[in-house]
Formats: sequence, structure tokens, C-alpha cells
Amino acid sequence: MQTPDFPIAALRSALEGIACLDAPADRTRLSRDFYWFSPILKEQLDGKLADLVVQPATQEEVLRVVAACARAGVALTPRGLGTGNYGQAVPLRGGVVLDLSRLKQVLWAKPGAVRAEAGARLSEVDIETRKLGWEQRMLPSTFRGATIGGFYCGGGVGIGSNNYGMLKEPGNVLGVKALSMEAEPRVVEYRGREAIDLHHAYGVNGIILEVEFALAPALPWIECIVSFADFNAAAAFAQTLGESDGIVKKGISAHQWPLPKSYRPLKDVLREGESVVMTLVAEHSEEAFRELARAAGGAVIYANDARAPGAKKITLQEFMWNHATLHALRAGEPVTYLQLGYPQGRNLELVKRISAVFGDEIVQHLEFIRVQGRITCSGLPIVRWHDEARLRAVMRQLEEEGVYIADPHTWMVEDGGKKSINPRHVEIKAAMDPAGLLNPGKLRAWDERARGATGTEQRKSIFWDG
Amino acid sequence: MQTPDFPIAALRSALEGIACLDAPADRTRLSRDFYWFSPILKEQLDGKLADLVVQPATQEEVLRVVAACARAGVALTPRGLGTGNYGQAVPLRGGVVLDLSRLKQVLWAKPGAVRAEAGARLSEVDIETRKLGWEQRMLPSTFRGATIGGFYCGGGVGIGSNNYGMLKEPGNVLGVKALSMEAEPRVVEYRGREAIDLHHAYGVNGIILEVEFALAPALPWIECIVSFADFNAAAAFAQTLGESDGIVKKGISAHQWPLPKSYRPLKDVLREGESVVMTLVAEHSEEAFRELARAAGGAVIYANDARAPGAKKITLQEFMWNHATLHALRAGEPVTYLQLGYPQGRNLELVKRISAVFGDEIVQHLEFIRVQGRITCSGLPIVRWHDEARLRAVMRQLEEEGVYIADPHTWMVEDGGKKSINPRHVEIKAAMDPAGLLNPGKLRAWDERARGATGTEQRKSIFWDG
Repeated sequence: MQTPDFPIAALRSALEGIACLDAPADRTRLSRDFYWFSPILKEQLDGKLADLVVQPATQEEVLRVVAACARAGVALTPRGLGTGNYGQAVPLRGGVVLDLSRLKQVLWAKPGAVRAEAGARLSEVDIETRKLGWEQRMLPSTFRGATIGGFYCGGGVGIGSNNYGMLKEPGNVLGVKALSMEAEPRVVEYRGREAIDLHHAYGVNGIILEVEFALAPALPWIECIVSFADFNAAAAFAQTLGESDGIVKKGISAHQWPLPKSYRPLKDVLREGESVVMTLVAEHSEEAFRELARAAGGAVIYANDARAPGAKKITLQEFMWNHATLHALRAGEPVTYLQLGYPQGRNLELVKRISAVFGDEIVQHLEFIRVQGRITCSGLPIVRWHDEARLRAVMRQLEEEGVYIADPHTWMVEDGGKKSINPRHVEIKAAMDPAGLLNPGKLRAWDERARGATGTEQRKSIFWDG
Repeated sequence: MQTPDFPIAALRSALEGIACLDAPADRTRLSRDFYWFSPILKEQLDGKLADLVVQPATQEEVLRVVAACARAGVALTPRGLGTGNYGQAVPLRGGVVLDLSRLKQVLWAKPGAVRAEAGARLSEVDIETRKLGWEQRMLPSTFRGATIGGFYCGGGVGIGSNNYGMLKEPGNVLGVKALSMEAEPRVVEYRGREAIDLHHAYGVNGIILEVEFALAPALPWIECIVSFADFNAAAAFAQTLGESDGIVKKGISAHQWPLPKSYRPLKDVLREGESVVMTLVAEHSEEAFRELARAAGGAVIYANDARAPGAKKITLQEFMWNHATLHALRAGEPVTYLQLGYPQGRNLELVKRISAVFGDEIVQHLEFIRVQGRITCSGLPIVRWHDEARLRAVMRQLEEEGVYIADPHTWMVEDGGKKSINPRHVEIKAAMDPAGLLNPGKLRAWDERARGATGTEQRKSIFWDG
């Protein structure tokens, strides 16, 4: 069923020639993302539905959709391929879902940089850049399906952030082209620092048409697993590896047993009861890497060179970040997850402390990244699910211990990773979406401003505040 | 004049067919390095002379020289091109200087690694690796003339250490081939961690025949200078740049005015009275770099792309590290220099403090590097020269302020950068040079062991101790 006053006829006529879907099954499928990772969000978001899904194939078509919706005062929620979390792509107030996955041209690639339309899959972008000897600096574990626009709008870090830091670090995002939500939509190019004001904002303050990313030299990677009897030893090795600047690697993640038990494709490789560190090591660093692992008491139980004959076709990148969570959820236990940020310098101490305090209520999964030039970890622990009250209590206790929470059980931009209000988000929304039609209900500061609220709570985050 | 009992006839006969020099002018020229940077060392080392200089062209010839010297009990001091400091290549007790600069084959280069004979010039090595799209991870400012063996034996860091850390970090030195100082010389290959036990040891515990280094992908670099009215602002920018992991750069150095005044080739570029930051920025990071410089209040006064038509032929790499010192010394003022290590996290505060405490007695020059995964700086300040007593007082005061001193006014391995005894140095020397003939008088622990001394002073260094 559509929202009673949804102007379907007017839109249909304005969108003549542009692919539209209004069958309930399509609308359901394209109104979802991986919010179901959270039992809390699942309950709140199941059933939220677009009135119409539009699938423009060109930027001209996007412009027509946006103009039509702006004129009709219809909410518009941009969407990549829905591989993100937190309901960032769920149309809370119905309206149109703008599926950008057909807008997928890689516009150009040159040494060090690539520019693509928002709907280009990261894996397709990679194919183009590799032809020139370059690869993406960081990728989400969903790189096969995820779009470049989706990653820009909903991602913050990725596999490779141990080298290049967070996506928002200067030099990673070179520019974006955005469209305003107006009857006469304007195209605006944001470069450098300004491009970060639309980043990780779920599309609330501009419709991203094109993204320009800086690249890294493409290297031959050997995917390695190091096994440890003790999780703290694994975490310490991951930290040391991260700080070993002479060993070139991409992605460093530590997984506490029994989390690896859910990694079925790796079951012949993994050791019962042992925790692991997964990483991609450059070929010319393999010897030094093995020596470092040995010195740390680890056993290199897997080293897969995808180019070698007989190599395994799986990639460890699909066991990192929230893919690990996905494997754990699929194992069927009543569990959910959190996203944690550890202060630099104290991270290993806090990792130990969490195991001591929570025992097996929390199974730890750490991803090591550079934050402000320094290696620390973010945590994506699997948490046994009782109910929301218990989960909130766990979160409070973690904060008291000194760990930052990037709450994955909320769809609010500010309440998730960012933690604090970015006034530029709001300023740009005011300029680009004066009627507040873009992905409504996701930017708390906007809604509070609309209600005339003041004194919004400000919490500082090491990850997001400069 | 030669040492009275030097067995010149026996050696001449054993070395038949190998190039030897015994004219005083040649012996003088090839018994020196840049120790004259230090007025203290200049007084102590002027006049120290080899009895004979031997210039083997092949490894077989090196082996014959070593065997002959070992049999005759003659001291042997290996030498690259003498571009190093501290008298590390000065034959304190006469004997033979083994000039390895003709042993200069680049043995192989492959993606990520290169192996060359000790006497290969770093600039020649670079030509070979660039053919494959790779470059050296770090270079001394003397890269044009310096040899790979000399850099390994006498260098610790270089232009590029902001990315790859110190040369001793695992993964940078992949291996070395060394020859023992024995009547029947043995060839030993040291890999990984073990190769570091012969590193920065001035050749006291093995004659280095071949060096294998890991490489970095070669990038198009734009050489940039950012000018600041205030030196502390320059230093803060250099730190921020170092920690900006999304901006790809190689080498970051900050130079306090009036140091830049001595950089004649740059005089049309530099601003009177201003301090500068010099760096090499990857082409695809230039836009973000300029934005960062602007935000820090700096003016980009120079950006030279060596590939562009009309580009300047000079390189800023020859104004970094001790080349800056060289320019300052050539300016003719009575000055000398120091080498400082700043603890991570407190470095900018200490940089400020030094200006406050010493005023214009010290002109600061900082090189930003990664140490244990974290950006800090080393200092190569220019210090006004009164006498040794005053210099020692300045050093004591700097140590009291919390700065580490890598004393460049001593030829002892342990008293310079390393600060503490490495027992492995001595163990390897015992195995590789049982008679103590290699570069004698440079390894304090060896001489004290020979004298039966115990309880050697141990001082910890953040840069050298694990």
C-alpha cells in the first residue's frame, strides 16, 4: 500500500521514460539495507516502505526525478546497493527511493585517482584502476556489491585504513559532484575538505552523482592467517604489525575464538579454539611478516597468493569488518554486535579489560586502523542478545571503561559513528535541501532545528572530531 | 709515511693484480669522511691515515684482500664513498682501507626488492629499480654519491622514513651477505632480523658484500616548499602533514630561519626571515596538500615537478638531513651541529622549549619520521661553536629537557645514535672477526671486553632500543 496522499499520477507522468518500480516486492527489497544486524532496528524498521522506487540510468534522468519530487514535495531517499547498515537507506517517511545502481560509469581513471558515477560498484572501479597499476585505498568488506556512492555516503573506514586512515582524512576523497533537492536542481562540485561535509551523511544533504577517490599503487597481496592460542597475543601481534612500517600490508583484523568457528569456508584451515589475525601482506614483505609472526608466538596457518596455481578463490577481505558479523549472525545464535573505537595508546589494555569484564558475553573482533597518524583498533564485537535494556547497559559500561561507541543500533547520522553535531552538515542541507526532503528523519540536528530545539547534546569522539 | 711495521711487501705480493694506492694524497683522500662537520672530530682525526688503500673490483678480489690482511694481522677498514659522518670510515689504527666503490653491480631488481653489491651507488640502484616502477624506500641526502653498503653500515634513516620508519624496521633490510675477517674468509648470508645486527656498525663485525633492500612503488613527486612567518607553525604543519595519512609524501623537513639563508640555489624562492617546510608530494595528493598548507597558514612558495618543461634541475632532497648542515657549514660562520631524537607525543612542545631556552645559539632543523609507528621528529640543529666544553654543556641541558642526543661528535658505534650496547654486535664480531681487525677502535663494547672491563654504562634510546 502507498501513502494515501502520494502523488503517484503526477510523478508517473513527470518520470515518463524512466524506470520505476511499484510492485510491493520490489519496494520492500529496495527499501532495506543490513539494518537487520540489529534486533532493535529490525523491530523499528521492518515495514518501512518506499511508495515508489525510481531507477534512473543517466544523470539527466536523476535530475528529472529530483526536480519532480522537489516540485511535488515528496521525500527522496538515495540508495546504492543497500549493502550498508543502520537503516541509512530506509525511507522512514515513504516517498521515493532513488536507486542509483544503474548510474555506474567509471568516468576516468589516471595514476593516483579515479572518478566514477555514484552507482559504480567498487569491484568494477577496481578493474578499471588496476589496468593502470592502481587500486583503491580502502574498501568495505562488501566491495563486490557496494557502490562508490554508497561507500562515500555510509562508510567511514575500510580494508586499507591501516595505511590511509579514515576515508575522511585529507587526500582520500578528492571531490564529489552533488545535486541539490530543488525544483531547479543545481549541480555543485565539492573539492577536498568541503567534500567531507557530505560524507557519511546518508545522502541527507545532497544527492551524490559522482565521487573522485585517490588511489594506492596496486600490489600483489598474499592473504595470510596467523593463529594464536591466546586472543590477547593475537591482538598484540596485530598492533605490532600495524606499527611495523617496513612490512607492507592491507587490512589487519583480530578475531577471538569462537568467532572464527562461524567462518565455514575456512574450516579446514582454522584451528579449534584458537584466535586469528587476518591480513593481506605484500609479496615482498612476506619473509619479514613470517619472522614477525614467529617472534610473536603465532603460527602462519594460511598464505594464499591468488595468482598462484591451485590458489583458493575465497578472499579474507570477506571475513573482515562487518562480514565477520554477517558470518556470526548466520551461525544462528541469538547475538548482535557493536562498533567500538579504542583510544590510541590504551587500546590493547582496554581489549584485555573487556574480556575480563564481560567474559563470553562479548566475543571480540578488532580491525586495526590509523587514526590521526597512529595505529589503534576499532572493535566490532559480537554480543550475546538478551534484550535492548541489557545491550544499552553493556554499552554504558563499555563507555565507562573508556571505549567509544559508534552505535550501530540507531539510524541517526549523529548518534552512530559521528557522535557530535557537524554544523556544516546542517548548513549544506539548508543550501542543498531547503525543504528537508532528502532521506528525512536521519539528521537529528536538522529535525531539532526544525522543532526549534537548542542545546543539543554534544559528545566528542576521537574518531570523528578534528 | 706508513706505520713502521706495516708488511707492505707481503701484502703487495699477496694482492698481485688488485688495484692498490699508496701515494700519500690518495691515502689521505680515502681515509676521510665528513667527520670535519665536527670541530671536535676534526682535531682528533685529521692525520689518521691508511697505510694502503685497496680497490678490489670483484668479490673474489675482496676475498683475497681479506685473507691476506687476516693472515698478516693487518687492520682493515671497509669504506663506501666516504659520504658519511663521524669518522666511521677513518682507519684509526692505520692498516688497509678497503675501498668497495668498484664492487658496484646491481645483482637483480624485481617488484618490491633489489639486491646490489656494497659499492653500488644509491643513484645507480635507483635507475635499475625505476625501470620496474619501484624506488628506494629511503635515501640519505647524499644519495647521488653514497653506496648501498655505506648507507646500510652507517645510515639509520633517510628521506622516506616518514613512511617506512628507520632502516632497521623489519621489512626494510631483507638480507645482507657478509665476509668474515679470517685467513679463510667465510661468506655468510644474514636474513631479516639478523641482518640488523650488522647494520649501522661501521663494518666492525663483517665486511658487507651485498645488500638486499625492500622497495616502494615509484611515484611522480612534486617537490614543495611551504613558507611560514613562525617556525613553530612550520613544525606543527610538518607534524600534521606527517600524520595526514591520506596525503602521500616522502621526506618532511622543517628549517628555522636563518638556516634557509645558506641555501644559495633556492635564494630566489625563499622569503627573507621565514622558516620553511620542504617535502616531496605525490602528484595526486597535491590538491589536498595545498589545502592543508593553506589551513595551517603556510604559503606554498615552490612546487617543482621535475618532469615538467622548464622545471628546476635541483632537488630539495639535497637540502634535507645533513645536506642542510653542509650548506650551513659552507656559509662560513663558526657553527657545528647535533643530532637529536624527540620522544613521540612531546616533540612539538620540546621544539618550542629549545628555542625558548637556547635562543639563537641553536637554529633548528627537524626531519619528521615514523618511529614505532608514530610520527615524531629528529633534529639536526645548527649550534653556534664556542668550544667543546660549551657544546657538551648544551648537550647535557638538551638531555635534561628530555631530548635524546645521537652524538655526532664521537666515532664510537655505541656513543652515537645507538646509545646502548647491542650484545649481538659483539657476538657477531667474535664470530666474524675473532682477531678484532675490522675497523678497530669503533666498537666500545669490544675494546672494553678486550680490556676485561665490565658494567658498561647502558643508556636507553627511544630510537634504538626495542
